[in-house]
Amino acid sequence: MKHFEKMCIIGVGLLGGSLARVCRKENLVSSISGFGRNLATLEKAKQLGVIDTFSQDLRTAVKDADLIVFCSPVGTIVPRLKEVLPHLKPGCLVTDVGSVKAELVTEIDAVMPENMFFVGSHPIAGGEKSGVSASNADLFCGAQCIVTPSTKTSPSALSKLKVFWTDVGMEVIEMTAEEHDIILGAVSHLPHIIAFTLINTLTDLKTKNCDNVAKYSGKGLKDSSRIAASDPVMWRDICLHNREPLLNLIGKFQRELDLARQCIENNQSAPLENSFRKAQKSRIEMTAK
Amino acid sequence: MKHFEKMCIIGVGLLGGSLARVCRKENLVSSISGFGRNLATLEKAKQLGVIDTFSQDLRTAVKDADLIVFCSPVGTIVPRLKEVLPHLKPGCLVTDVGSVKAELVTEIDAVMPENMFFVGSHPIAGGEKSGVSASNADLFCGAQCIVTPSTKTSPSALSKLKVFWTDVGMEVIEMTAEEHDIILGAVSHLPHIIAFTLINTLTDLKTKNCDNVAKYSGKGLKDSSRIAASDPVMWRDICLHNREPLLNLIGKFQRELDLARQCIENNQSAPLENSFRKAQKSRIEMTAK
Repeated sequence: MKHFEKMCIIGVGLLGGSLARVCRKENLVSSISGFGRNLATLEKAKQLGVIDTFSQDLRTAVKDADLIVFCSPVGTIVPRLKEVLPHLKPGCLVTDVGSVKAELVTEIDAVMPENMFFVGSHPIAGGEKSGVSASNADLFCGAQCIVTPSTKTSPSALSKLKVFWTDVGMEVIEMTAEEHDIILGAVSHLPHIIAFTLINTLTDLKTKNCDNVAKYSGKGLKDSSRIAASDPVMWRDICLHNREPLLNLIGKFQRELDLARQCIENNQSAPLENSFRKAQKSRIEMTAK
Repeated sequence: MKHFEKMCIIGVGLLGGSLARVCRKENLVSSISGFGRNLATLEKAKQLGVIDTFSQDLRTAVKDADLIVFCSPVGTIVPRLKEVLPHLKPGCLVTDVGSVKAELVTEIDAVMPENMFFVGSHPIAGGEKSGVSASNADLFCGAQCIVTPSTKTSPSALSKLKVFWTDVGMEVIEMTAEEHDIILGAVSHLPHIIAFTLINTLTDLKTKNCDNVAKYSGKGLKDSSRIAASDPVMWRDICLHNREPLLNLIGKFQRELDLARQCIENNQSAPLENSFRKAQKSRIEMTAK
């Protein structure tokens, strides 16, 4: 079912490209324009049939759009939206796909005029690959999409957005931006920081006869550090836009690790076993669900 | 090629059972006896054709064996070996499959008589499954086996053991027990401690409207914490038998994590990105090799 006449995708990469593809496939919008910094990417996206038109001028790209989806890095959304705000079509709905929400929602709520609508979204999808060439219409299929209304959010805009993401194929979950940032900080951002840290701990670690201990890495280390191969700029931005929840979570992790370290240092068998047993139970339950 | 007349497996679980199977398949030994605490397991192993005979009396199990392989938990090896030492066949070769080596090698070297031989082994194989039912002749195929000779090791015993593991199907690597413990501490033990700690950090984490944040876990968290489902008793023993290397590694990890935490706290964009970029590069190289 057609929800919007013209959708504008800001940032036509893996997420933006995949969203355009599924909207076209499911006939959710009439036309799709793209904006990006890289001309070659935009040309490729058009050539692949992912978008209908493109422009490197933000004002041109958003012209007449009644749905604008920011798929560009978290740090670029607010400045770009502020820049283009006077040129948006009255009544248009603006959302994003960013991994951090509270700061963004507060800043956008403060500048959004009465006759335009913003609701934050976080479709939990992605992967190690990036770029429009990796985009596909199935990326979002069956995944969760968190939408983060605030006290300023228009109920009808929220409802329209929820129907849109549902038709994209996602399970839509509603929560506050603050709650989103704590939860995603815990299940996504913290694990990334830990994986980066684990790899940095092992890099350059030498023994008397071995100048690269990583060559002995097995499946365990490889699986547990896979996400350390993720984009450093994206993760820098996510961390710096979700500082307070992450500092709390890192602190909690540090206290937990210090308990394990103390058990090892003081040869405390029972509390160490209990701690590992508690983790084992939780981890098994996590997969069972 | 037959290397030994009678092999005795102490602990007929996943590793012991798989070793027995491959020895039989490749015709490396004439007969196989099993020792274990659990009668049902031993009966099952015999019924499956994994072992020829078994006994719950250690002295009976090792009688006439010219190869004894300890596949029981790390903490049980030294006491059991000391107990049965007066009853071993002169000239017999003793080894093990434990994940920690230095303490074990030192303690066994101190008690081993002139006419019997010990060399530590660590075939790097295993998996989430355990028990003799999960054993299979291919478990060791193509994997690395570290052997850890000391200054007390007989060169001919070492050579015999290396040929044995090679015929089992493994790539044999020789290093000191101390070096083994640092390297495995880094690529295996530390990642397990970190995975247990990550899960314990998230367990019981509640937000205002969510009593179980883990239900939002995606592939990233699941992969990075998979090894937290491992056996808590086995990992307790490994940690407490490899204390000094692990305390050093945990300390290094804690310092790395604190650097990342400080970058986030002080909003330091460039050093945070550099740190993530360094990890990304190392992680990509790890898989490329």
